[in-house]
Amino acid sequence: MKIVAIDPFYLRMPEITTAADGTQDTLLIRIRTDAGLEGWGECDASPLVSIAVYCCLMSHGNIINIRESLLDETLDKPADVLRLSEKVLRNALDIQHIQHAYSGAEIALWDLIGKKLEKPVYQILAEITETQSNPYPKLPYASVLFGDTPESTYQIAVKLREQGFRAAKFGWGPMGKHGEENDIALVRAAREGMGTEAQIMIDAGVVWGSDYETAYNRANAFAEFSPIWLEEPLAPDAISAYKALTDKNPRVPIAAGEGSSTYRMAEDIIVNGGVNFIQIDTGRIGGIMPSFQVRKLAEQHGIQYVNHTFKSHLSLAAALHVFATNPNFNLLEYPAANSELSQCIVKQPFQIDPDGLVRVKERPGLGVDVGTDAIRPFLAPVKIDVGSNTVFQQTSL
Amino acid sequence: MKIVAIDPFYLRMPEITTAADGTQDTLLIRIRTDAGLEGWGECDASPLVSIAVYCCLMSHGNIINIRESLLDETLDKPADVLRLSEKVLRNALDIQHIQHAYSGAEIALWDLIGKKLEKPVYQILAEITETQSNPYPKLPYASVLFGDTPESTYQIAVKLREQGFRAAKFGWGPMGKHGEENDIALVRAAREGMGTEAQIMIDAGVVWGSDYETAYNRANAFAEFSPIWLEEPLAPDAISAYKALTDKNPRVPIAAGEGSSTYRMAEDIIVNGGVNFIQIDTGRIGGIMPSFQVRKLAEQHGIQYVNHTFKSHLSLAAALHVFATNPNFNLLEYPAANSELSQCIVKQPFQIDPDGLVRVKERPGLGVDVGTDAIRPFLAPVKIDVGSNTVFQQTSL
Repeated sequence: MKIVAIDPFYLRMPEITTAADGTQDTLLIRIRTDAGLEGWGECDASPLVSIAVYCCLMSHGNIINIRESLLDETLDKPADVLRLSEKVLRNALDIQHIQHAYSGAEIALWDLIGKKLEKPVYQILAEITETQSNPYPKLPYASVLFGDTPESTYQIAVKLREQGFRAAKFGWGPMGKHGEENDIALVRAAREGMGTEAQIMIDAGVVWGSDYETAYNRANAFAEFSPIWLEEPLAPDAISAYKALTDKNPRVPIAAGEGSSTYRMAEDIIVNGGVNFIQIDTGRIGGIMPSFQVRKLAEQHGIQYVNHTFKSHLSLAAALHVFATNPNFNLLEYPAANSELSQCIVKQPFQIDPDGLVRVKERPGLGVDVGTDAIRPFLAPVKIDVGSNTVFQQTSL
Repeated sequence: MKIVAIDPFYLRMPEITTAADGTQDTLLIRIRTDAGLEGWGECDASPLVSIAVYCCLMSHGNIINIRESLLDETLDKPADVLRLSEKVLRNALDIQHIQHAYSGAEIALWDLIGKKLEKPVYQILAEITETQSNPYPKLPYASVLFGDTPESTYQIAVKLREQGFRAAKFGWGPMGKHGEENDIALVRAAREGMGTEAQIMIDAGVVWGSDYETAYNRANAFAEFSPIWLEEPLAPDAISAYKALTDKNPRVPIAAGEGSSTYRMAEDIIVNGGVNFIQIDTGRIGGIMPSFQVRKLAEQHGIQYVNHTFKSHLSLAAALHVFATNPNFNLLEYPAANSELSQCIVKQPFQIDPDGLVRVKERPGLGVDVGTDAIRPFLAPVKIDVGSNTVFQQTSL
């Protein structure tokens, strides 16, 4: 089949705040073929900046937009996705933003191939890499922001526990901003609210920059509350600081990697940063295949791969296919502070099964359908003119 | 003084081809203050994608555009530039494209500070880092594309030699695409055209991807023509392949780094890739200060820093300030295949002095003035609407 349309859709809530809540807007990519199939993907990125990568005028042979690279191309088999990804990335060699923008299209291409072959994406990945293809359930951890105070954090944790979550990650907000005592009180509140049986994770939201000494001290101070990990204590690029931190063997394992915009960034923080958990956002790193390659690298290094997902369940579906077949990678970031927008993007959100676990969808492609009627009210139509050219005009949902 | 306006200008030639010629379009950034001063900078990036980073609507606290971060801010001293850069980058933590876009603004901020303090930028950099402040002249190497054939490459080289160039770099085009024999013939033609006294460099334009064996064989095959370096034989991200290549000690030194969109990417290819020359584009890596930091790292590692410049002499001015004060870093990439557009951007292009060398401008700021009347015919006005918001409307030049 031939690719006949590549359409981005910028969706947003009417009110957007500075909270580190990634569900306030989103960019969906729809790709259609002449066989009447359509695939969807979601980017965790600035929607407008990413749209520009789909429509920018050519600057030279290394700055060519995604639409131009994909339109009229053949898409019949998994190898075509790999070939098209190579073409897109090569044509956009000098566009820094290419991975953030392309992620949605790459995911949509896998969705399309799955629909054409009538197989779930995880199964196709297993086949082309000749690895085992049984999917395993994951333990979802609710991913939420800290409350502004320990008390409000406690209330959030209690509510999550009442909702049945056996694991939860608390992040950003006041963490690291009001001194050690408050930081410890926040973690204590999370633990007490969730109870002693639950798994908790702490996300420091890059707050200590390159100050690995403070990160080390906090990790040790948090150890009495037994968090599974301390996440992003340092800036994404502070690889030497990560190395200094992990070399000191803090009493809580270190997680990082959501800022990986390329496979190399993930490889760098694993190999040279020494992290214990690698967290990859399929909607940032360029899609499903580079995420899968990081998963393989994590397996080689004996560390744990975890998804980073702070968008809708469309992103969650893509994320799950990447590591569904590895039983040891058993934790799933599960966005639990969802906006109204993010809750209506797919028609089949991932439910937590009675055993408390989440399973990949046994349906073709990603296994979820986009609720176009539900999301239409959130569409922010985009129009871009450059000189006398209208380079982007909104297509209808 | 206060920043009162941050204005991007997208300039382009009427016809743009797929040739790897970066001078076919450009993005200039003009920043104005309430003291009546203005500073300019140039990005080596996709203009439209970068403009989107100046005006995109907020997605959350980690996706805030550059204009919003800079507008109404105080700019009085060098420390303000560093503070503002930190703010811009932190506010745009989740925008992959932030460095490509911000480079032009960062350069403009240095231009402004130099004008305010009535000092050239290189001198301010020396003062704030307490390093020596004598500038040294550089040997310009003409940076051109290979001809389509060895014969046309020879003609290009002869012409450069007649123009007085004592050094020239030949790159991209057919290199690596038609087998070893043709590759060698291309290099031979460059050497014969330039003569035995000249310095020549070879730029393979990332053509061998991660195939370090071929890169190694080519480097050795080219050695008889004594090029100063073999540049970018491999993909920018192929750090392990660079390591494998440099560990084999090819007979021609290896240069790379122009694809560094962050300081860490440059650090990575130096520390983990083992390159002999690090090539940094001030218009991509986030501006003058991160480039300067790479220069310092190169000094620590005993390798050579070289600018990457394939835009106008506005970019060349910014590039020169970064390493003017290091006498050992004596080579200067000097764009010599300039479009009509790129030739008219500054009023004081860098001349090659009678001794064959190029010197940094001893004037405040970058030391060059933008020829607004000359470039106005090339302006492609941009308008961007998102929903009911016009987020970008062209200001006049």
